[in-house]
Amino acid sequence: MKERFIESYQAVRRYTESLCSPLEIEDYVVQSIEDVSPPKWHLAHTTWFFETFILIAQLKKYRLFHPEFHYLFNSYYQTLGNFHPRIKRGVLSRPTVKMIYDYRKYVDQHILNYIQNISEIDFNELQRLLILGLHHEQQHQELLLMDIKHNFSINPDFHFYPINNGIQKAENPITMEFTFVEGGVVNIGHPGLDFCFDNESPQHQQLISPYLIATRLVTNAEYEEFVNADGYKKPRYWLSDAWECIQKQGWEAPLYWKKINNKWYEFTLAGMKELDPFTPVSHLSYFEADAYARWCNKRLPSEAEWENYVITNSFSIRQGNFLENGYYHPLPAASKTPQQFFGDLWEWTASAYLPYPGYKATAGSLGEYNGKFMNNQFVLKGGSCITPQNHIRATYRNFFQPDKRWQFSGIRLASNIE
Amino acid sequence: MKERFIESYQAVRRYTESLCSPLEIEDYVVQSIEDVSPPKWHLAHTTWFFETFILIAQLKKYRLFHPEFHYLFNSYYQTLGNFHPRIKRGVLSRPTVKMIYDYRKYVDQHILNYIQNISEIDFNELQRLLILGLHHEQQHQELLLMDIKHNFSINPDFHFYPINNGIQKAENPITMEFTFVEGGVVNIGHPGLDFCFDNESPQHQQLISPYLIATRLVTNAEYEEFVNADGYKKPRYWLSDAWECIQKQGWEAPLYWKKINNKWYEFTLAGMKELDPFTPVSHLSYFEADAYARWCNKRLPSEAEWENYVITNSFSIRQGNFLENGYYHPLPAASKTPQQFFGDLWEWTASAYLPYPGYKATAGSLGEYNGKFMNNQFVLKGGSCITPQNHIRATYRNFFQPDKRWQFSGIRLASNIE
Amino acid sequence: MKERFIESYQAVRRYTESLCSPLEIEDYVVQSIEDVSPPKWHLAHTTWFFETFILIAQLKKYRLFHPEFHYLFNSYYQTLGNFHPRIKRGVLSRPTVKMIYDYRKYVDQHILNYIQNISEIDFNELQRLLILGLHHEQQHQELLLMDIKHNFSINPDFHFYPINNGIQKAENPITMEFTFVEGGVVNIGHPGLDFCFDNESPQHQQLISPYLIATRLVTNAEYEEFVNADGYKKPRYWLSDAWECIQKQGWEAPLYWKKINNKWYEFTLAGMKELDPFTPVSHLSYFEADAYARWCNKRLPSEAEWENYVITNSFSIRQGNFLENGYYHPLPAASKTPQQFFGDLWEWTASAYLPYPGYKATAGSLGEYNGKFMNNQFVLKGGSCITPQNHIRATYRNFFQPDKRWQFSGIRLASNIE
Amino acid sequence: MKERFIESYQAVRRYTESLCSPLEIEDYVVQSIEDVSPPKWHLAHTTWFFETFILIAQLKKYRLFHPEFHYLFNSYYQTLGNFHPRIKRGVLSRPTVKMIYDYRKYVDQHILNYIQNISEIDFNELQRLLILGLHHEQQHQELLLMDIKHNFSINPDFHFYPINNGIQKAENPITMEFTFVEGGVVNIGHPGLDFCFDNESPQHQQLISPYLIATRLVTNAEYEEFVNADGYKKPRYWLSDAWECIQKQGWEAPLYWKKINNKWYEFTLAGMKELDPFTPVSHLSYFEADAYARWCNKRLPSEAEWENYVITNSFSIRQGNFLENGYYHPLPAASKTPQQFFGDLWEWTASAYLPYPGYKATAGSLGEYNGKFMNNQFVLKGGSCITPQNHIRATYRNFFQPDKRWQFSGIRLASNIE
Repeated sequence: MKERFIESYQAVRRYTESLCSPLEIEDYVVQSIEDVSPPKWHLAHTTWFFETFILIAQLKKYRLFHPEFHYLFNSYYQTLGNFHPRIKRGVLSRPTVKMIYDYRKYVDQHILNYIQNISEIDFNELQRLLILGLHHEQQHQELLLMDIKHNFSINPDFHFYPINNGIQKAENPITMEFTFVEGGVVNIGHPGLDFCFDNESPQHQQLISPYLIATRLVTNAEYEEFVNADGYKKPRYWLSDAWECIQKQGWEAPLYWKKINNKWYEFTLAGMKELDPFTPVSHLSYFEADAYARWCNKRLPSEAEWENYVITNSFSIRQGNFLENGYYHPLPAASKTPQQFFGDLWEWTASAYLPYPGYKATAGSLGEYNGKFMNNQFVLKGGSCITPQNHIRATYRNFFQPDKRWQFSGIRLASNIE
Repeated sequence: MKERFIESYQAVRRYTESLCSPLEIEDYVVQSIEDVSPPKWHLAHTTWFFETFILIAQLKKYRLFHPEFHYLFNSYYQTLGNFHPRIKRGVLSRPTVKMIYDYRKYVDQHILNYIQNISEIDFNELQRLLILGLHHEQQHQELLLMDIKHNFSINPDFHFYPINNGIQKAENPITMEFTFVEGGVVNIGHPGLDFCFDNESPQHQQLISPYLIATRLVTNAEYEEFVNADGYKKPRYWLSDAWECIQKQGWEAPLYWKKINNKWYEFTLAGMKELDPFTPVSHLSYFEADAYARWCNKRLPSEAEWENYVITNSFSIRQGNFLENGYYHPLPAASKTPQQFFGDLWEWTASAYLPYPGYKATAGSLGEYNGKFMNNQFVLKGGSCITPQNHIRATYRNFFQPDKRWQFSGIRLASNIE
Repeated sequence: MKERFIESYQAVRRYTESLCSPLEIEDYVVQSIEDVSPPKWHLAHTTWFFETFILIAQLKKYRLFHPEFHYLFNSYYQTLGNFHPRIKRGVLSRPTVKMIYDYRKYVDQHILNYIQNISEIDFNELQRLLILGLHHEQQHQELLLMDIKHNFSINPDFHFYPINNGIQKAENPITMEFTFVEGGVVNIGHPGLDFCFDNESPQHQQLISPYLIATRLVTNAEYEEFVNADGYKKPRYWLSDAWECIQKQGWEAPLYWKKINNKWYEFTLAGMKELDPFTPVSHLSYFEADAYARWCNKRLPSEAEWENYVITNSFSIRQGNFLENGYYHPLPAASKTPQQFFGDLWEWTASAYLPYPGYKATAGSLGEYNGKFMNNQFVLKGGSCITPQNHIRATYRNFFQPDKRWQFSGIRLASNIE
Repeated sequence: MKERFIESYQAVRRYTESLCSPLEIEDYVVQSIEDVSPPKWHLAHTTWFFETFILIAQLKKYRLFHPEFHYLFNSYYQTLGNFHPRIKRGVLSRPTVKMIYDYRKYVDQHILNYIQNISEIDFNELQRLLILGLHHEQQHQELLLMDIKHNFSINPDFHFYPINNGIQKAENPITMEFTFVEGGVVNIGHPGLDFCFDNESPQHQQLISPYLIATRLVTNAEYEEFVNADGYKKPRYWLSDAWECIQKQGWEAPLYWKKINNKWYEFTLAGMKELDPFTPVSHLSYFEADAYARWCNKRLPSEAEWENYVITNSFSIRQGNFLENGYYHPLPAASKTPQQFFGDLWEWTASAYLPYPGYKATAGSLGEYNGKFMNNQFVLKGGSCITPQNHIRATYRNFFQPDKRWQFSGIRLASNIE
């Protein structure tokens, strides 16, 4: 039991570092926008998480690696005291990258010692927390690539991040079809034996009307039609806040699209690439996903619709295009079979991120992990091409504010039965 | 049929003006914060609504009262063209108050002529639009008092708005009890024969678990306990955005509370009054309502819970404390019987303001009326002491962003069955 | 002595009110931008000045007209305590216009009583303060018209302010010539017997090199050449802060210019008028005056150059186009004779508004009147078409920040001797 | 001639790099506030200056090191085209530090080749530009230390910059005395044979009244009295903009002062140090210098007073505490003799930074070097402990906006003869 966990622990921790191995030291430091954190901050914060919620909480004699790290690397846990302002994470040149790697080693060593020295019974009690720490680390693996991509995009000609070049482009478009789903009273949320985040609980029942759900994600070519039809210039497709947002930000296309000599290009982790028509459109905000759906007389699925369909049809997580593939980019649909539910892109739902009936936040400071963000966010499902495969499940609830688009997010359409 | 409508039309239009009759001319002009509009703007905008959606839309020969009013008094209908920025409504000294009253007369005359000159059949078709115009006017009656109150609050010693002084204060507190409700599959939304806003449709079914709902609203005395317990200083009760909001705005109590010589006072339309302990606490944001509920280990009811309970128990709108009472302030609960569902204060629900399954926005520009606000807002139910009585119903969905608190809003608690 | 003063007092106070007589009550209330104050605020503030610095300071038994007026109508005297924020002067509907006129009457009555009841000796001591109050009131007469003009400009079709229509337009341009001035050691500043503001003192000597100064102000036609030459689009003519300002504000021409059907119009107090080519260009910021001068290889005169030239040549104030003319607009030059030094437009100088050597601010709170603004402002000389004639003199130092342009300001060019 | 220049060139360029040698790579990247630039930006920008104004301007066949560097490392030369926004200099991780050092080598090599290949006559013509480039580099040597200090101050416990530890603290205070200066008609500005910046020209005459000037700079102990006397809380000492600034920024003491356990400490390049009473107070804004002078009934000297006194008394630059000392901190006065005019701290003058009579900006884009900043800045004189010794002279005009205080600036008092 312990041994298997130790293996997982080391694998996850090492994987995080491997994602940073292509970086120059300078790349670890910068923060291109407030949403983004410097890579070295992620490396430290995930370590702080283990230090704070395990070592400090459990070990009376534990000696802090550095007394100021608690201030510097607490992300948002107000009940743990003041912390360095998020917007200023990029002005800290020190602690150096080297010191942060030392911090990781120090904490890892203490964690492993601790595990080895406790009884199996104590370990069992602790395990939930340790697993939470690893899932937390995996979330930051995804954030690392999101943030590196955004940082690199500021100055695109100077960066190159190595990717798996084996992507096969589709020759022809795959028709988007819509599958009829019966609905009814369905179970939503996590049944509770294995690990899940508190926001996936409790499992409960919802009543869903019959609906149609698309067999694949919306492609670049399809979204480009919306752009070409002046979709970003016509207020009738947009929510009021969305319209204000696109005016203020000057949005005219998805985040990483750029028109060069009248041709669309897309910034990827491997640099600027010509836009591939049959690849799913990515880096969309909820505002854009919602406007696009309205433009084509469809709608986004609700969270319950998405989750019910995916669970009922037992889609396998194994088939998805995840982080481990090393593409760091969504892949085109391969056939008309319903697909792309797991991996590729997070799928915006029409559901507000709110507590499930009977939700209880985790006790103590960890209650701030998910529960305090339950307003002005929409739920996304399914994971993306930069999500670790063993991190996701059908009941997983990701959430972003409706104007955010630096995450790998796309559109699956749904529709009512008329 | 026509005659009854004409009577209603004149009554509603006159009532709006009567609400302004205590104002000095200066009071018609100012805009204390962006949310507020100058009273004269409300008088003109409601008139513009009839002019635009009826006279201009139906009558080829209609002559505009003034060519610039379309720009000045369009509120937010992007599909009708540019309009004067909301934030600058208070910098327009002209058109004068007198000119706006002339505008009202002019449009009323044309509306009445038009009604009298069309056939009963044509009138029947038109009636839905006319009734929408009247309900729109009634919404602005409420906004007028909200806005006048806020404008007056800036400089409280100089203002007095006449109110019905017959309010009887409660001598003793009434215990708050919780009623058990069975839940099940219930009908939510408007069945559709009578008038309703598009956002109340379509009626559909939801599955609700059993729950408890409070017999009355939370009082000033109860909320003061939260304030005294340093509720505004402890992050654990607050959503993340809420905590940021109260830090930034310096909130320490509800909007109109003011401590003078160590005693709480409350600004009302009739001036500053000592805080009455047994009167419902009002002018709370969702953030505050949610934090208070968390502090006392309860929660806010969902929209479906509220609506189901109210419809199942046939609470009568007649009993409510509405605008026509002239109190312009909530009244204390009178007994332990479940009460205060209609009137007194809008009740925050835990439900995001989102479209019902199958929702279709009204066609054309009127589709902007409700549909485009469906993000980052929470639903409020039941109307308030400044809502016209015949404007409200159980399925009515009011909505505000979670940080707004100049509306007359309060808290009814709910709870799960453990 | 007393009697003559009382006459002046009444004349000045009445004149202020006469400037407001064309206003509707609504016009008294609004504040179109932070720089502008509502007309009723000016009426009250000038009265507060007499109340504060004379009645309260001198009369132990004086009863305040209203206890909150001290907070509401203190402009910027920090040493007198907190005051209502400048930016929010336009959100106060009360005190009403009528109440403010009553305030004026009340204070006037007390001032006049007081003067009548003191000895001639005491009066002589007091007179300097009283005269300061009247000059202060005259400054606000100018501000009133500046502010009314700006308020009206927001919504130009709805306003009309009556002006003297006798303006004669020039048929032909008058050549701009440059007069040689010897310079040398000259006296600058006020010699000190009559009234002057503290910032005009002490008189002192400066050494000036020979220079050339233009015979008249720059005209609309001349400035239009700069606009047509893309002057607003070429950074080389602009100071760094100026370039940032015009980018941010989107300036493309002087404040009140508007192109309609490819023709320039200018907003005046009497409404939108076709731009008159030979009238002096007005409502320019220092940034624009400086850029224009650079564009035509000239420069602005220094304060000392302007003052020396005007004093040496004994230009008469009597000839100027001042407030009393009722044109409220500059007039074209009439001949090649040096002219337009007094009245028409305030002339930007190249001199920073700084203390003269040996400057001492008035003792007490009145020391805040002028002294605390001595950074980031440039001096303007000569008065304008809305300055009261008996308010101005050659040593008078007006000052504005370099980006302000709602004042009646223009350009007189100067040049070095090469 | 050439050889001596080449030596200087190499010495200056090498010195810049030596100032960065104590930095970690991470330290090269960050920008703690908008005023500050990342060290690697300084290294690149000074190189860009030589590349742009010499290599590109003179050599047709010159091949750019990298085509985007013109965009990235142009500081503020609008006439040379768009450039990367100043505020975002800290979000660029690339080009890496290594690449920038390569850039320096590349440009240096081309500059040296170029010099070696041209005739002595051509070299003579070019020399002024080359020397300008070196002085420009020296200005950035000072900026480098200013910026490194500010960057380090954000996170003080993690940084250490090596300094010369030989500073001797004074045991006793030295009395501040005031020297009488006659004034009269004096020469101001650079006579013009040697190198100077365009803003020091032309030399011209000014008339100065007799005045008193302090023998030394104001010390920490003296300034602390002002702080202890609630100087930062009393509006009467402050300019209006200054008062607004200290309210908004929450200033309560000089930039780098910090109270720990009721004792003042000061952040230095070598870390946090207990405040030394007899060392000159540093890192003051003009606003603070001006307020302090007013508080003690003195004033700041004008630029002409300072310059006249220093030139008349032939103070030697050799005696100053400059960059080469390696203290990077001002030294206490050593005796009552007038001193500290050169080095130690830049001294705020009461003079606005404006063109001298007859000033002509350098032709072409280099005209943007100094001329376009001539508004809202005050002149500072004499150099500081981080100014290269051979960079300064009595006529040198440094300038900062009145609210800036990350430069090494202090106070020398002056006074009128009463």
